[in-house]
Amino acid sequence: MNRTLPTVGILGGGQLARMLALAAAPLGIRTLALDPAADACAGQVAELIAAGWNDEAALAALASRVDAITFDFENVPATTAERLADQVEVHPNPRALAVAQDRMAEKTLFRETGLNTPEFAAVDTQADLVAAVERIGLPAILKTRRLGYDGKGQFRLKVPADIDAAWSALGEAAAEHGLILEAFVPFDRELSVVAVRARDGEFRTWPLTRNWHVDGVLSLSLAPAPDTSDELEQAAVAQAKAIAERLDYVGVFALELFVRGGELLGNEMAPRVHNSGHWTIEGAHTSQFENHIRAVLGLPLGDTGVRGASAMLNWIGDMPEATPVLAVADGHWHDYGKDARPGRKVGHATICASDAGSLRAKLVEVGAALNREAQVAPAIEVLG
Amino acid sequence: MNRTLPTVGILGGGQLARMLALAAAPLGIRTLALDPAADACAGQVAELIAAGWNDEAALAALASRVDAITFDFENVPATTAERLADQVEVHPNPRALAVAQDRMAEKTLFRETGLNTPEFAAVDTQADLVAAVERIGLPAILKTRRLGYDGKGQFRLKVPADIDAAWSALGEAAAEHGLILEAFVPFDRELSVVAVRARDGEFRTWPLTRNWHVDGVLSLSLAPAPDTSDELEQAAVAQAKAIAERLDYVGVFALELFVRGGELLGNEMAPRVHNSGHWTIEGAHTSQFENHIRAVLGLPLGDTGVRGASAMLNWIGDMPEATPVLAVADGHWHDYGKDARPGRKVGHATICASDAGSLRAKLVEVGAALNREAQVAPAIEVLG
Ligand SMILES: Nc1ncnc2c1ncn2[C@@H]1O[C@H](COP(=O)(O)OP(=O)(O)O)[C@@H](O)[C@H]1O
Ligand SMILES: Nc1ncnc2c1ncn2[C@@H]1O[C@H](COP(=O)(O)OP(=O)(O)O)[C@@H](O)[C@H]1O
Ligand SMILES: [Mg+2]
Ligand SMILES: [Mg+2]
Repeated sequence: MNRTLPTVGILGGGQLARMLALAAAPLGIRTLALDPAADACAGQVAELIAAGWNDEAALAALASRVDAITFDFENVPATTAERLADQVEVHPNPRALAVAQDRMAEKTLFRETGLNTPEFAAVDTQADLVAAVERIGLPAILKTRRLGYDGKGQFRLKVPADIDAAWSALGEAAAEHGLILEAFVPFDRELSVVAVRARDGEFRTWPLTRNWHVDGVLSLSLAPAPDTSDELEQAAVAQAKAIAERLDYVGVFALELFVRGGELLGNEMAPRVHNSGHWTIEGAHTSQFENHIRAVLGLPLGDTGVRGASAMLNWIGDMPEATPVLAVADGHWHDYGKDARPGRKVGHATICASDAGSLRAKLVEVGAALNREAQVAPAIEVLG
Repeated sequence: MNRTLPTVGILGGGQLARMLALAAAPLGIRTLALDPAADACAGQVAELIAAGWNDEAALAALASRVDAITFDFENVPATTAERLADQVEVHPNPRALAVAQDRMAEKTLFRETGLNTPEFAAVDTQADLVAAVERIGLPAILKTRRLGYDGKGQFRLKVPADIDAAWSALGEAAAEHGLILEAFVPFDRELSVVAVRARDGEFRTWPLTRNWHVDGVLSLSLAPAPDTSDELEQAAVAQAKAIAERLDYVGVFALELFVRGGELLGNEMAPRVHNSGHWTIEGAHTSQFENHIRAVLGLPLGDTGVRGASAMLNWIGDMPEATPVLAVADGHWHDYGKDARPGRKVGHATICASDAGSLRAKLVEVGAALNREAQVAPAIEVLG
């Protein structure tokens, strides 16, 4: 029999759980994921319990076998997280999870800690929507307060006539999850702070990441974010720190920001490792996955310094040919082992380089070889 | 059901198989290890078949499920490797494996490809031993031709009176495995070339690694090996390349070398990923484990360039406290999940730094915190 190793339970068994498991294993830390889908991709590298979020017996079994529990999926019912927290350490804590699950609570917190946000209003009825459009103006985005991800559960309104269509699309969700109307921000850039906070309050961030979304889904990240002033970086980090402290947050999280005319606006926070931090696997001394595991178990945090410049390309729907990325120097391939499905995140690639010029050259090469010129174009432009 | 992913079979399920599995997973490549021990540590991160090297049914089942087979353990019977090679790609090929399994064949090959070795002689009987000592002189080392590892199966002779004791210790092994007597080399340093060769013959090496052994077991590695002339490095790489080509070798291997007065002497080759290449996980752009998987499956080789200077400390017998290594910047922890046992390799740590001075300072700190001053001392001296 092998000796008893520390074990982290993970609610959700997707690619984030998979990458957490792969980061935990070298440390001699085992992972046990729970997911409603028996073929969840973390099951290829960690033990997987196939069970629903309300399966009390399965949750109790999970809690009895682990030293701490964390999340691959933030939309686990808050009651589930609370019940588990009575039995075992749960990080991030259920209150932090609850705030991050609700776009209203999240934006309210941002404003309380001094981070401006797009104008927003809660919408429960069609009359609320009409009133909100009147106050906030158009264009605007109607979103579900809960359970949205990868641009899902959103409707963009350009003219007042769009109100009916928006209500048709999301009115039904209003009753169950609530809605929020947000002013559409004609932002100059999107950035994220990927940060980690330890049990003892130690707080570290990786350099700011610049992100580009297509149809509401992350397509491309570049880190460290080029052309970012120290002032902007310090302000973003200070906001992330204030939020983490307010929530007594433990683990990795991402704060998604818009930059408009030099001003930072809070979009949302992800209470977990985040797609915009995937580049840290190869591009930083310690990855977001390893630091999340360290934080959750109360181990010292690892060095978040970087090794040059990195670009992350998301693979959505299906995997491209690996060869061009494998063949480029310091090119790294991540295939989550999932079946192809439209809109699904199935993998990513990270290209690292010692400097911006060399990163740019590699992206030109990879973009051409993969016929993905459009996907790499924004990075090529800013690295130019 | 998840889609069918490429799968690599691994004969042996120890820490090398474990680290191969962890390197394969991000690429969407599955691993299936076979080991006589049901609790072999690779089973914590990959599927494991518990079966012996001669279990034909288990081997056939393995072969039927994988795209290629490789080794965590080089002392798999050559006949087993040959039988598998009839069914599926086996890398390295059985002939390369057979040569590397036999210290006589190995040293004979080294000489044929132009790499000098310590004087050596085959020893099958006590009379052979007496004659060999007469020819080679003392001090010398008597070793089993096959199945030795981590200094096991060796006897050091200093004076002629040691012959009887040497024969008592190893005479029994002579009948089964054969013995070899080697001149003891008062070397200045030990180095290794960790190299990878692709199916198409492409050949790459990581920078030379300097190694220190204690009681015949690797204790400390430093890479790139400090104070190594370009000439020496080029000569070592040329030797490794010649050997790989002669064996039509595919995958990673290590060539262990002694340096004496500027001359290179071949000690042995390991036909697999090697302990002196563990630092490549964090210290190089592509690790030896990932490049081995790439080579075995015929994928493009990854960049073997380095990210500064690295030191690897082996943990033998039991794991020290992790905290001091986790707390040092760019310090990395590897716990193989094994039970403690005297002499057993149970884990390692890698400390990376941008330059020699900073690596030295970190080693001083870690050595003191772990009470392992003696283990880090040789590195501190040469980095000074
Ligand atoms: N108020 C807004 N103004 C402009 N663009 C927005 C706004 N809200 C969302 N977006 C765009 O849509 C993307 C996804 O929206 P987000 O609210 O982050 O939802 P999700 O939870 O699906 O990530 C954002 O990253 C941004 O590109
Ligand atoms: N001929 C030799 N002269 C001097 N030292 C030797 C000799 N052979 C082995 N050693 C020392 O013992 C270590 C282990 O021996 P090696 O032959 O590599 O066996 P193993 O297969 O156990 O690694 C070497 O790395 C070296 O330090
Ligand atoms: Mg978002
Ligand atoms: Mg050796």
